[in-house]
Amino acid sequence: MEDCIFCKILKGELPSCKLYEDEHCIAILDIFPVSHGHSLVISKKHFDTLLDAPSETVCRLLEPVKKIAGAVVKATKSDGFNLIQNNHRAAGQLIPHLHFHIIPRKTGDGLTFHWKQSKYPEGEMDKTADAITKNLNS
Amino acid sequence: MEDCIFCKILKGELPSCKLYEDEHCIAILDIFPVSHGHSLVISKKHFDTLLDAPSETVCRLLEPVKKIAGAVVKATKSDGFNLIQNNHRAAGQLIPHLHFHIIPRKTGDGLTFHWKQSKYPEGEMDKTADAITKNLNS
Repeated sequence: MEDCIFCKILKGELPSCKLYEDEHCIAILDIFPVSHGHSLVISKKHFDTLLDAPSETVCRLLEPVKKIAGAVVKATKSDGFNLIQNNHRAAGQLIPHLHFHIIPRKTGDGLTFHWKQSKYPEGEMDKTADAITKNLNS
Repeated sequence: MEDCIFCKILKGELPSCKLYEDEHCIAILDIFPVSHGHSLVISKKHFDTLLDAPSETVCRLLEPVKKIAGAVVKATKSDGFNLIQNNHRAAGQLIPHLHFHIIPRKTGDGLTFHWKQSKYPEGEMDKTADAITKNLNS
C-alpha cells in the first residue's frame, strides 16, 4: 500500500530498528515504546486488520511472535508480557497494517489497564450471547 | 489443572455463557466485561501462557478468534476490537490458562490505553535491539 508506513518500512523506504525477519514478517522495536523493549511483529503482506488476513497467514506470524516475546522478556528481565493486536481506529489501531504488539511488563510497572469492568444486567448476558451466536452462524 | 477456573469451566464444573466450542477451544462471554460483548477464547488444553503452548496449538485458536471477533463486532455494532493476550501476573493475567480477550470497541468509548509512550535515549534503542537479538539466537 503506497501510503502505509509499515509497507514503507518493509520496502526499506523508512528506517526501523529490526530485530528479526523471515519470509512472512519482520519484527522491529516500536519507536514510541510504552515499555522498554516494546516490539512489533508486522506481516509482510499488507492486510488492514486481523479479519482481512487468512488464518494461515496469521499462523505464520505466531512462531515469530513467541520467539520475539521470549527474547524480549529475557533481554529486558521482565516478568511477563502483553500481546496486543488492535483492529480499526476505534480500537487504537494507528497503522492499518496487520501487526502485533509485544509489551514486556514488570511487576508494579503501573501499566495497568484502566478499563472499568462491569456486570451485565439480569438477562442481558444471554441476550448478548444469542446476538453473537446468531452472527456466528450467519 | 485442579485449581484452574478455566479447566473447571471446560469440565462443566463452573457455569459459563458459551458462544462457541470446537475440538481445541471454547469461547465464552467474560462475566466482568470491559465492553458489551467482551469475549474470551480459551484453549481446551491447559497451558499457563502463550510461551508454554506449541505454535500449532495456538494456530488452532486463530480461526475461532477471527470468527468470534467478527460476530462480536457485528452483534454489538462495534467499530473495531482489541485482541489481547496477557502472560503472567505482571501483565494482568488473572487466570494462568492460555486465553485471548476479544474486546469490541466503539469510537470514543473512552477505553483508551493510558500507557505513556516514551522515546529511547540516544544509543539505547540499538543496545536494546542487540540484547533482544542475542536472546533470540541463544
